[in-house]
Amino acid sequence: MVGIFDSGIGGLTVVRELQKKLPKYDLIYFGDTARTPYGTKSKETIVKYALEDAQILLNRGAKVIIIACNTASAVAYETLKEKFKVPVFEVITPAVRRALELTQNKRIGVIGTTATINSSIYEKLLKEGREKIEVFSAACPLLVPLVEEGWLDTRETKMIVKKYLHPLRTKSVGTLILGCTHYPLLKKIIQPRIGKRVNLVDSAEEVVKEFQQFLKDNPKIDAELSKTSQAKYLASDVSARFQNIAEKWLSKKVELERVDVL
Amino acid sequence: MVGIFDSGIGGLTVVRELQKKLPKYDLIYFGDTARTPYGTKSKETIVKYALEDAQILLNRGAKVIIIACNTASAVAYETLKEKFKVPVFEVITPAVRRALELTQNKRIGVIGTTATINSSIYEKLLKEGREKIEVFSAACPLLVPLVEEGWLDTRETKMIVKKYLHPLRTKSVGTLILGCTHYPLLKKIIQPRIGKRVNLVDSAEEVVKEFQQFLKDNPKIDAELSKTSQAKYLASDVSARFQNIAEKWLSKKVELERVDVL
Repeated sequence: MVGIFDSGIGGLTVVRELQKKLPKYDLIYFGDTARTPYGTKSKETIVKYALEDAQILLNRGAKVIIIACNTASAVAYETLKEKFKVPVFEVITPAVRRALELTQNKRIGVIGTTATINSSIYEKLLKEGREKIEVFSAACPLLVPLVEEGWLDTRETKMIVKKYLHPLRTKSVGTLILGCTHYPLLKKIIQPRIGKRVNLVDSAEEVVKEFQQFLKDNPKIDAELSKTSQAKYLASDVSARFQNIAEKWLSKKVELERVDVL
Repeated sequence: MVGIFDSGIGGLTVVRELQKKLPKYDLIYFGDTARTPYGTKSKETIVKYALEDAQILLNRGAKVIIIACNTASAVAYETLKEKFKVPVFEVITPAVRRALELTQNKRIGVIGTTATINSSIYEKLLKEGREKIEVFSAACPLLVPLVEEGWLDTRETKMIVKKYLHPLRTKSVGTLILGCTHYPLLKKIIQPRIGKRVNLVDSAEEVVKEFQQFLKDNPKIDAELSKTSQAKYLASDVSARFQNIAEKWLSKKVELERVDVL
């Protein structure tokens, strides 16, 4: 079983991509909706939460873990990799690799939560990946609440996106990393506001490509993963609102099971 | 010592009011910043969190508890009152009383988080308080993130406030309850958008008035409260952002101590 977790429901963009590319693989998702969002919290708190989230998935039989949350990937990946024996995937390295492949003018923009941007992880990895890369970052803390409110196409969301992207647009970035699993839902309004020719990198798509490649390279691990097209959804807080958003995103009936994190 | 808690930093509006009206009373504040916000979560989760929050304050010597959070007041007050022996104050009843005093056209508006509005507590108490009252409610889930982002006076915040208030304005409410301790920070932009003649009821002001009256009526309890103008601030997650907002709101240096809720 493939275990996937997020601070809330943003990681369902990874689930959707996984079900598109690897529909037979059984998966278990955990959204820490009782403590969401992570992006405005401290590193210490996020690491503690991520360890608990991964443990919940392992207790339910996950054989690999995908951290479907940029914030947790940014600050907790190393700790999870050391602590757990199963393969752990994060959403940042695959997005960095893709951005470096795509860039032509060597000017790359990154948007994410406050915690992700403050970690400077994208900037560090992009500059390690290739010399002479210029990185321009912007924290966009209101985009997660806007997506969770379902305001995907309102005038207010468009104005706020424009405001957040303005500094990156003036820097003429050629590639923009959507450094939060919620942001692919805003792709249609981000694209015209950053510029039509700017390449958008979707971390949900990239982590699934990386995972597919890993399975090809590691047939023994692939063989251990059950493939009966089952999906199980866990959340630390279950409300009608989360249920509705999950069903809308995945375009199907979703049964959320409440699990306690404490 | 007076214990005050909130899901995060909104309850500091109650602290500010308390320090204005009762500057000598020692107080201890706890903001559950590691699990904020509460307003989008389920009743069960909020009750559990509120019990833990109050316990933290009691362990530190609080002799009375003020729930400085409308969401927790709406769904957890009864449980706290039963469980703990100290006097417990909540922010809803005082605001209801004030709104009933002020109303002339018997049309009262209420804005709050999704959890507060879904609880229907304001509507229930207003209608119990007086017959023939009409209540119009609107959940405003983006206002807390906007306040926490510090966007108190931006064009985007004004537009979003206008959008949320529009249905109440068309109902010609004469009085509007600010049913969230974050909202007093937006008073200046709320007033012109709901109408200049509409009375705004600030739950932070009202709960402190109620508490003052209680102390007059209960001199024995008043005598037990220490009065050395001390204030202690605890939070479950401490970040520069929270620190800045707290110092800006209270107009003084604030030392936040991190305490673990788990």
